[in-house]
Amino acid sequence: MTRTGFLGDLLGQLVERRFVPARGGGDRPMEELCRNLMSGGGEVSTMRLARETLARYRGLDAAGRRAFFHMLADGFDVDAAAVAEAARDYGAARDAATLDRLVRRAEPARQELFRRLNHAPGATADLVRMRRDLLGLLPEAPDLARVDLDFAHLFASWFNRGFLVLRQITWESPARLLEKIIGYEAVHEIDDWEALRARIDPPDRRCFAFFHPAMPDEPLIFVQVALVKGLPGSVQALLDPGRAVLDPAGADTATFYSISNCQSGLKGISFGNSLIKQVVELLRQELPHLRTFVTLSPIPGLGPWLSENAASGDAAAARLLELARTPGATFDDPAALALRRAAARYLLEAKDGRDRPRDPVARFHLGNGAQVHEVHARADLSPRGLKQSCGAMVNYLYDPEAVEQNHEDYATRHSVAAARGVRSLARATGDWPGAERKTKADKETSRDGQPAP
Amino acid sequence: MTRTGFLGDLLGQLVERRFVPARGGGDRPMEELCRNLMSGGGEVSTMRLARETLARYRGLDAAGRRAFFHMLADGFDVDAAAVAEAARDYGAARDAATLDRLVRRAEPARQELFRRLNHAPGATADLVRMRRDLLGLLPEAPDLARVDLDFAHLFASWFNRGFLVLRQITWESPARLLEKIIGYEAVHEIDDWEALRARIDPPDRRCFAFFHPAMPDEPLIFVQVALVKGLPGSVQALLDPGRAVLDPAGADTATFYSISNCQSGLKGISFGNSLIKQVVELLRQELPHLRTFVTLSPIPGLGPWLSENAASGDAAAARLLELARTPGATFDDPAALALRRAAARYLLEAKDGRDRPRDPVARFHLGNGAQVHEVHARADLSPRGLKQSCGAMVNYLYDPEAVEQNHEDYATRHSVAAARGVRSLARATGDWPGAERKTKADKETSRDGQPAP
Amino acid sequence: MTRTGFLGDLLGQLVERRFVPARGGGDRPMEELCRNLMSGGGEVSTMRLARETLARYRGLDAAGRRAFFHMLADGFDVDAAAVAEAARDYGAARDAATLDRLVRRAEPARQELFRRLNHAPGATADLVRMRRDLLGLLPEAPDLARVDLDFAHLFASWFNRGFLVLRQITWESPARLLEKIIGYEAVHEIDDWEALRARIDPPDRRCFAFFHPAMPDEPLIFVQVALVKGLPGSVQALLDPGRAVLDPAGADTATFYSISNCQSGLKGISFGNSLIKQVVELLRQELPHLRTFVTLSPIPGLGPWLSENAASGDAAAARLLELARTPGATFDDPAALALRRAAARYLLEAKDGRDRPRDPVARFHLGNGAQVHEVHARADLSPRGLKQSCGAMVNYLYDPEAVEQNHEDYATRHSVAAARGVRSLARATGDWPGAERKTKADKETSRDGQPAP
Amino acid sequence: MTRTGFLGDLLGQLVERRFVPARGGGDRPMEELCRNLMSGGGEVSTMRLARETLARYRGLDAAGRRAFFHMLADGFDVDAAAVAEAARDYGAARDAATLDRLVRRAEPARQELFRRLNHAPGATADLVRMRRDLLGLLPEAPDLARVDLDFAHLFASWFNRGFLVLRQITWESPARLLEKIIGYEAVHEIDDWEALRARIDPPDRRCFAFFHPAMPDEPLIFVQVALVKGLPGSVQALLDPGRAVLDPAGADTATFYSISNCQSGLKGISFGNSLIKQVVELLRQELPHLRTFVTLSPIPGLGPWLSENAASGDAAAARLLELARTPGATFDDPAALALRRAAARYLLEAKDGRDRPRDPVARFHLGNGAQVHEVHARADLSPRGLKQSCGAMVNYLYDPEAVEQNHEDYATRHSVAAARGVRSLARATGDWPGAERKTKADKETSRDGQPAP
Repeated sequence: MTRTGFLGDLLGQLVERRFVPARGGGDRPMEELCRNLMSGGGEVSTMRLARETLARYRGLDAAGRRAFFHMLADGFDVDAAAVAEAARDYGAARDAATLDRLVRRAEPARQELFRRLNHAPGATADLVRMRRDLLGLLPEAPDLARVDLDFAHLFASWFNRGFLVLRQITWESPARLLEKIIGYEAVHEIDDWEALRARIDPPDRRCFAFFHPAMPDEPLIFVQVALVKGLPGSVQALLDPGRAVLDPAGADTATFYSISNCQSGLKGISFGNSLIKQVVELLRQELPHLRTFVTLSPIPGLGPWLSENAASGDAAAARLLELARTPGATFDDPAALALRRAAARYLLEAKDGRDRPRDPVARFHLGNGAQVHEVHARADLSPRGLKQSCGAMVNYLYDPEAVEQNHEDYATRHSVAAARGVRSLARATGDWPGAERKTKADKETSRDGQPAP
Repeated sequence: MTRTGFLGDLLGQLVERRFVPARGGGDRPMEELCRNLMSGGGEVSTMRLARETLARYRGLDAAGRRAFFHMLADGFDVDAAAVAEAARDYGAARDAATLDRLVRRAEPARQELFRRLNHAPGATADLVRMRRDLLGLLPEAPDLARVDLDFAHLFASWFNRGFLVLRQITWESPARLLEKIIGYEAVHEIDDWEALRARIDPPDRRCFAFFHPAMPDEPLIFVQVALVKGLPGSVQALLDPGRAVLDPAGADTATFYSISNCQSGLKGISFGNSLIKQVVELLRQELPHLRTFVTLSPIPGLGPWLSENAASGDAAAARLLELARTPGATFDDPAALALRRAAARYLLEAKDGRDRPRDPVARFHLGNGAQVHEVHARADLSPRGLKQSCGAMVNYLYDPEAVEQNHEDYATRHSVAAARGVRSLARATGDWPGAERKTKADKETSRDGQPAP
Repeated sequence: MTRTGFLGDLLGQLVERRFVPARGGGDRPMEELCRNLMSGGGEVSTMRLARETLARYRGLDAAGRRAFFHMLADGFDVDAAAVAEAARDYGAARDAATLDRLVRRAEPARQELFRRLNHAPGATADLVRMRRDLLGLLPEAPDLARVDLDFAHLFASWFNRGFLVLRQITWESPARLLEKIIGYEAVHEIDDWEALRARIDPPDRRCFAFFHPAMPDEPLIFVQVALVKGLPGSVQALLDPGRAVLDPAGADTATFYSISNCQSGLKGISFGNSLIKQVVELLRQELPHLRTFVTLSPIPGLGPWLSENAASGDAAAARLLELARTPGATFDDPAALALRRAAARYLLEAKDGRDRPRDPVARFHLGNGAQVHEVHARADLSPRGLKQSCGAMVNYLYDPEAVEQNHEDYATRHSVAAARGVRSLARATGDWPGAERKTKADKETSRDGQPAP
Repeated sequence: MTRTGFLGDLLGQLVERRFVPARGGGDRPMEELCRNLMSGGGEVSTMRLARETLARYRGLDAAGRRAFFHMLADGFDVDAAAVAEAARDYGAARDAATLDRLVRRAEPARQELFRRLNHAPGATADLVRMRRDLLGLLPEAPDLARVDLDFAHLFASWFNRGFLVLRQITWESPARLLEKIIGYEAVHEIDDWEALRARIDPPDRRCFAFFHPAMPDEPLIFVQVALVKGLPGSVQALLDPGRAVLDPAGADTATFYSISNCQSGLKGISFGNSLIKQVVELLRQELPHLRTFVTLSPIPGLGPWLSENAASGDAAAARLLELARTPGATFDDPAALALRRAAARYLLEAKDGRDRPRDPVARFHLGNGAQVHEVHARADLSPRGLKQSCGAMVNYLYDPEAVEQNHEDYATRHSVAAARGVRSLARATGDWPGAERKTKADKETSRDGQPAP
């Protein structure tokens, strides 16, 4: 444990910090800077040029950045003919030198450029921000997607799971970091420091994040956990400032009620899928009496799906939407049941164009190996919750025993793993409020407990 | 500074450490394990498979490892025909999807395999050791160089300068690390802990190393520094246990008297060239009165070169070699001068097949932008020093003002920067033992862009 | 530096934390617990009893605490007759055994009781809080001052300057600590986290605190510093959220604009007087170009003094007070000058009953060796500032060269060191606004640079 | 946990370190320095004078130190008459002011002097060394014991258990600290770094120490632990470099085989008694399957006791001593049994002048609440072990359930708690070499409150 302590202590960091020569200015065109950087000077000039290029980039306006990326797209690309030739050669002679030539030619020069830019102190964060800028330009300049390929390739290598560090975020964490957590929370907004404290300081609340050592100030993704007794069915209850704090020894369920990606420049670089599972492991070690690991997740696609159904004449859907729009209205029990049925059906049956679950959050958790465990009405009564899903939410269950099989079933067949109760709800017929149920069919299906085609 | 402190503290490391599930055993063939790893399971199975594969690898004997690498070379290679086809496509249509296909096909599958192996805790160090094993097999199995290309490519990206951390090594450092410094010292052996202490604890001695955050236990390269007054001309004097310790405030010269690479599995991944220069910057900040930054370096090729000359009938060379072989013999002043002349001539004029300086240490420092500053006889009277270079050593000067220009001149023209005094020595004719000089060659060299007297 | 790093790392703390057995309850009377604690059981029972006693104390209501302190006052006191006898013995035979007996008898048993209570984890903070409670009872129960003597004696020993640690408080500090800084700030209130950030994060702002290792969560005293160019004359300008941040390299003056004691239970234990001086030293090391170290301090006694003068018929004082009470009124230049004169006269001439400066803040800084450097009108226009001192403030100068002499002069003769300008202001005659000045006398006095009797 | 992390990190330490003004020299007599220090100057002069006084002390020779201590003994003592007067006053009027005067007069001025000396950086360690010097002088200058009383009183307060920090010592600890562990080991010498590593690095070996925050470089006391299976009966087996390392999960017994005080200047300040018990708690938390906590301790008084018995004609004792002196001789089974009987009898029955167990190590552990658990022959075959105790050793058992009762019985009645087996051994009569037993004495002892078979 102390081994890492050595690396971790501040001495070396001090050492590093003292070695930050003053920023050199410079007026050379960006392309010249990049060419010089590629020309293979020594380390000192590489570092200096990298620093200058990044500083220059930061000073560019929108047009300048667009021009910069186009320059990268066209001026630092692969030479297709040269690659084809090298590939033919390697087809003929499978030796190392030929392979080397092939591999070098087939890698866009941008990748080496990015690697050299990364020599400057703090450059990794700069490059992540650079890609964020690029992603913003893609809709209007789809050709720049070629540049994004190189960012994505490098970042997938650099942000390899083996290089990430999992940390707990607590009320002892530096204010500078906590301030970012407030800013990055994407699911249930954190109003102020007091609200943040309520999420990380009480013994029945936890927060974990992944970090990369080259960006120690910047969380990559974080998850918030509530230790509770029984299955949670309301996010307002979880976040209620007046709630009673639970002794973790009395909890039986860990609820992941918020997971936020922090770096839009790392879009598509997957580390979220391992975060929940590692936190599950951690919590099992610390609190062996925990038995259930679930999320309390939004169903962002439910509202739009109900709208489509309503537009197609589904009166029940229309009524649910109207209820959710009525100020101060509450969902009475029949309405709540109708909403839960709708939610279950949506989650289990609504598909996107590729026969996957239509809901993006569902895809994330099911792809992770979780299963649909329970749906709740009156679970998120915030304006956003009502608009998004008429206030419904869902628990996805992370069952350590089932996660791998679920993951594989989903990966190969898009199977939606679900608890029997949710399956029953989804299958119930009858419109609201006096729906009949095909009890028999339900029993049959639930007997084998398998997802139906 | 504390920013990094947060990342550096132990909490997260603890968190990580608790999450190390027991090693699963397993008897599946290595190839099956690797195929499974490539088949894209979820993070949990990736981590489990990576761990198992690495554990299995560690258990392989030499034959097993050879077979493993051959499997990688042939079973995880690029499909040259597919690359050629994708390259033709990209020549026709320069869009992102086509480029993506090309780049993916042109990258040997081994790279993705290595990236996935890296998901296991501690895997980076395992992979570095794996390459070390591979390098040992190359002489007899040159075809495996194709596998090495992928290691080298990945490591160059992973051990990018931007990810390395510079630390000072002191007598406060963990014993586990210091033990490794003793073991890795490659230039002037460290006999025991007392000798180590003498190199890192006195105020006029320093040691710095680069680390990678994923291998915090393992220095990558380290350099040892002596703060002295005046130009140092004897490594035995520097390392003398009875020497007087100097108050750093009274030093005017920092001497880099030993630089050692620690990881043979990182061969060819360059970070050494930036280490000295960063340490120069650090020391200038801490001790602004330091004026000279030099090495005290061996001249490992001098002995062999003298032997060749002696074999070609150079009597002076023969005499120097004989002197160095005589037990207890000392170099008197005329002999010392002759040796210094020979050393200067060797360093400035002896070339390898590619017209670069023949001496490997010279190539390292000159390529770094240093210049030949002074040569000393009677400088390393250890058996190795006498055998290697008749006891001669050289100071390479790192002049912050000149480093970049020197580097560029060397990079473009293999120019050897040298102080006037050394240049004079190299050019001197004289009577001990009566060396003739090839004046013409010397002129040619100095025309080559060197400062002339 | 790393030496302390070892002690500082988290391992040992972890180790400690695991060893916190559950709180034992218990119904024994407090006196019985205290007697048992004194009866000299082994370490385990001492720690257990200490923990129990402290837990029981925390549960006491006001009456219970009063009874507890009376029990300490009467039941754990010295036996005067026994001391007198031992003193006679020691007068007769000055040997160690006799001295030992004398010293033991003359120390109230409370001190040993407090030392034993301190064995429990976290007990030091508990004892400090216990004294805070006691101090609250003293006005109505002066006899308990005997108990306070023992707290004060022990704390002076335990919080000896040699055991305190100076830390910088930054935006990287743990939120839990920063929250306390917000709460403890006593001079210029910190409204929220944003306001705190503005005081500790910009490069021209610093904050330092003393800590005791046994209370690492609790700052003892902290000082806030603004690096500025020129002498600061307005606290609102210093704290203006819209102010331009200054590059510290361009600052020439460090301003101590707030110093707050945090622990009322440590009242009278002096460490404040060394805090400013150490911070001066620190800043001189870091920023050698700083030339002036001043406070920007309130003059809390000025308002009352003006009121007294006004009541005695001083029309100028009455006018100043009226101006300060007028909403929206500003001090024009003649008013400002009148106020500055009044402030100078108050600081230099107003005395308390013991012939010391009447102003408590002045006594603190003058006793520290500072001198009155400048007075400002319109310097604190907050409601409190206007009420307290009509908005006037003062700079006390910490001149490293003069601090010791000033301190000594003040300690021996209550001399008030002051700059020539302030001295002139104080001496000016004439009522507001057209005062005449005794120029000659001023010159005479300032010639020898000494405060006049 | 991170709370302490903040205090622990290096920042503040750095801050402190920068503030170490250069040592002022000075030629003033020590007494004048001390008087000045007592005269109550400001903090700056206190710190400067403290530093100077300590520096001057360090430079004194033996005679100078003796003079210094005599000066303290006579010049900074209590005024007995003044104390007697104040005691009389307090007898008459029990108010705080009178008590204050009494307490101040009754405290030797030396204590305040030591507290002021402690203001200098690093002074605590200096003062501990100063007392070490003083203790060395006591045999020849018993009057100086009066000075020692004040050191002892202050140190007992400063090194209060509540201020100590327990740390594990590992192979990751700083070399500077480990070097001290090698030097301080008092029981079973550590030959070199390799031997040290064998004691702290393997998973079945542990080492713990107490530290004081003001002396972070200096362990106060440390204990070495071996995790084993079954009761250990040979220290050579424990320390055998070739021994098989045990998986801690397979251990059932923790053996404390060495405990060393490090600071002779802290003689008599008890913290050792809590160290073992805290480590027991720690190990129980970490390894709940451990069932037995024992020492493997020397019996240093056994040899001398046997010699006395031999001199009194005890032939068996003489034979044991002779065996132990024979080079290469082994104790065969009958001899071993005889030795164990002798050891049991010695431990249980031999008393010092105050009716306490005669063996000092026995007194330490029994006073701690341990009991005599088993005795072993052939347990320490080192020259010292053979000389000291004919190679016998003893296990003292720390049974968490019994420790407090044992401690109390020992404290009140000097009862020696012992296992039935040891008691039987002590009581056994037998034929090798034909020892007679004083049955009556044994009965008396067991009447003394010991468990009888």
